[in-house]
Amino acid sequence: MSAVPEIEFKGYALTSADPAKWSDLQVVPIKPKTFGPHDVEIAITHCGVCGSDIHTLTGGWGAVSRLPLVVGHEIVGKVTRVGEAVSEFKAGDKVGVGAQIGSCGDCRACKNGDENYCPKMIHTYNDVYSDGVVTQGGYATGIRAHEQFVFRVPEGLELRDAASMMCAGLTVFSPLKVNGCGPGKNVGVIGVGGLGHYAVLFAKAMGATVYAFTRGTRKEEDIRKMGADFIINTEDPEFYKPLQGELDIIVSTIDYFSPERPMKMYLSMLYAHGKFICAGLPDADNSLPPLHAFDVTLNGCYIGGTHIGSKIEATEMLQLAADKGIKPWVEELPMSKAREAVEGVKNGKARYRYVLKQDLVNYD
Amino acid sequence: MSAVPEIEFKGYALTSADPAKWSDLQVVPIKPKTFGPHDVEIAITHCGVCGSDIHTLTGGWGAVSRLPLVVGHEIVGKVTRVGEAVSEFKAGDKVGVGAQIGSCGDCRACKNGDENYCPKMIHTYNDVYSDGVVTQGGYATGIRAHEQFVFRVPEGLELRDAASMMCAGLTVFSPLKVNGCGPGKNVGVIGVGGLGHYAVLFAKAMGATVYAFTRGTRKEEDIRKMGADFIINTEDPEFYKPLQGELDIIVSTIDYFSPERPMKMYLSMLYAHGKFICAGLPDADNSLPPLHAFDVTLNGCYIGGTHIGSKIEATEMLQLAADKGIKPWVEELPMSKAREAVEGVKNGKARYRYVLKQDLVNYD
Repeated sequence: MSAVPEIEFKGYALTSADPAKWSDLQVVPIKPKTFGPHDVEIAITHCGVCGSDIHTLTGGWGAVSRLPLVVGHEIVGKVTRVGEAVSEFKAGDKVGVGAQIGSCGDCRACKNGDENYCPKMIHTYNDVYSDGVVTQGGYATGIRAHEQFVFRVPEGLELRDAASMMCAGLTVFSPLKVNGCGPGKNVGVIGVGGLGHYAVLFAKAMGATVYAFTRGTRKEEDIRKMGADFIINTEDPEFYKPLQGELDIIVSTIDYFSPERPMKMYLSMLYAHGKFICAGLPDADNSLPPLHAFDVTLNGCYIGGTHIGSKIEATEMLQLAADKGIKPWVEELPMSKAREAVEGVKNGKARYRYVLKQDLVNYD
Repeated sequence: MSAVPEIEFKGYALTSADPAKWSDLQVVPIKPKTFGPHDVEIAITHCGVCGSDIHTLTGGWGAVSRLPLVVGHEIVGKVTRVGEAVSEFKAGDKVGVGAQIGSCGDCRACKNGDENYCPKMIHTYNDVYSDGVVTQGGYATGIRAHEQFVFRVPEGLELRDAASMMCAGLTVFSPLKVNGCGPGKNVGVIGVGGLGHYAVLFAKAMGATVYAFTRGTRKEEDIRKMGADFIINTEDPEFYKPLQGELDIIVSTIDYFSPERPMKMYLSMLYAHGKFICAGLPDADNSLPPLHAFDVTLNGCYIGGTHIGSKIEATEMLQLAADKGIKPWVEELPMSKAREAVEGVKNGKARYRYVLKQDLVNYD
């Protein structure tokens, strides 16, 4: 076994409550949770930059009350050590951690393998472990996590490619899986950014016919390469009309809903009992457009949500990616350029996800 | 075979566009559709009074443009004659017709047995047949319907009991069936009126644990007799709090949403991927309460609609009712008292459904 690094826990943190300094991340020491018997300690090699990081840093989902705060929940790396009760992992294993780092383990959701819906879930950052330590994310040197929230990265999948699957990938894979995506199904993907590009890649890999909805024509060539069967420009105000009743699943990754585009416009594209899934999460002040019961009646459709994914789903997704050779479209930056990355995401520049590579320490 | 009555088509019709006269129904002759090879002609013995009748008569779903109009789509009776291509029915059979009387027969929905979601569906009244004749409902002597929209009333189920199953019953049975109601599932029913009392009866018969939500305590004793396991008084503004994350399906039969009760209140009671089904249809000016994507995220729940049911579902429902001896709580009135019945429904007096008995002719 190769030498196991001793992790000096530190990360790129939000340190100021001044909204103007939301992207000015400073290197600070961070305190890991108490290492328990079910815990896995991970030397972080890469961390994806998720829209959640930006919503959190900018206060869009509410002001951050515990500073300093390290964001990042698309974490991959190598196991450095495991607690005495851990049998699934050993030092040196390639693993990832997503947006959830704890749950009660005892409720109906936890017992059913739906731990991502545990009411007592602990978020990977900006939350508190049961030992009182504040959770800190992956723009950092290392992390400790209960083995339930550690996902094995299978052979054939590179860590840099697996990173953004931990949240972006899983957030769209889960609703596709839950709602029966597969051959014979028509899947719409609204918005082709970080989440949306994964939705196109996964829905296609699962055998569905994929309809990608994008504003303008800028991304058309990319989206075609990702494998979408149809590309629809939503700048046309009547874009939905030719698709009335056609789609089984719509994964919406947009995180801003215009009140000028009523929900029924989107919903009218669904076949009987079709699902419109809000995978993108807008800021707190941006509600869904007004909705009348009529809008869900004629096709008996549903509007629903989704919340990351379970370990069972994550494992299936990562294996699918390895088996089918799915490569996300990512741009790699050194972790010290986290500011550039979060500002790039905010300004819609990501093509289609930034992945930060460890540069606080050398784990090679 | 007993003598087959020759139907003189007439019914109790709305004849005036004056909103004040919405319940003043007059006996008028009606024109049946052209009798086709797939058609079944039915001597109507009973017709249930549905909330839809009231929404239509009062103009709540939009003004009625074709007068006179006979409403009623919970129709049962006996077959008088069948077209030459009909093999499923014969004269004398006990049958029913619900809220749908036509579809294209050719689209994905029709081919999949989801004909109740055919975009070209024809409503049983206030619509137009392909031959140009206006569709007229069941407060009448007879009706003709394509065999696809005629449901056999099985042995052991009385026509008077089957009548209101044709719309009220099917409207709640369908979403229960679609969403997996059965043993081990927790089903909430909001509003125990015509639809709601069927939802309690069917969900219980399907093996679920039933939570009935009702305003006040007036109906408590009734609801207990219907078989609900738990009865929750929604006058308590915190009624939903003890049920966080508990319910798999909520069938909402209320047809007015108070803006003071945000959707998230109801949605918070759902377990992971639980469904909130709008089975009650409010007037056009009563939207669903405001909704944020957050409200469907934490439990990955869905808000959905439903639209009557398919023939496959209707057949299963009627057989379940016959097998389990399900008797709806209905009050029978002669058809000449249609005015009293529609006003009673509008004023919330039905316990829990009015069924009009034929009195324009004697079919006995």
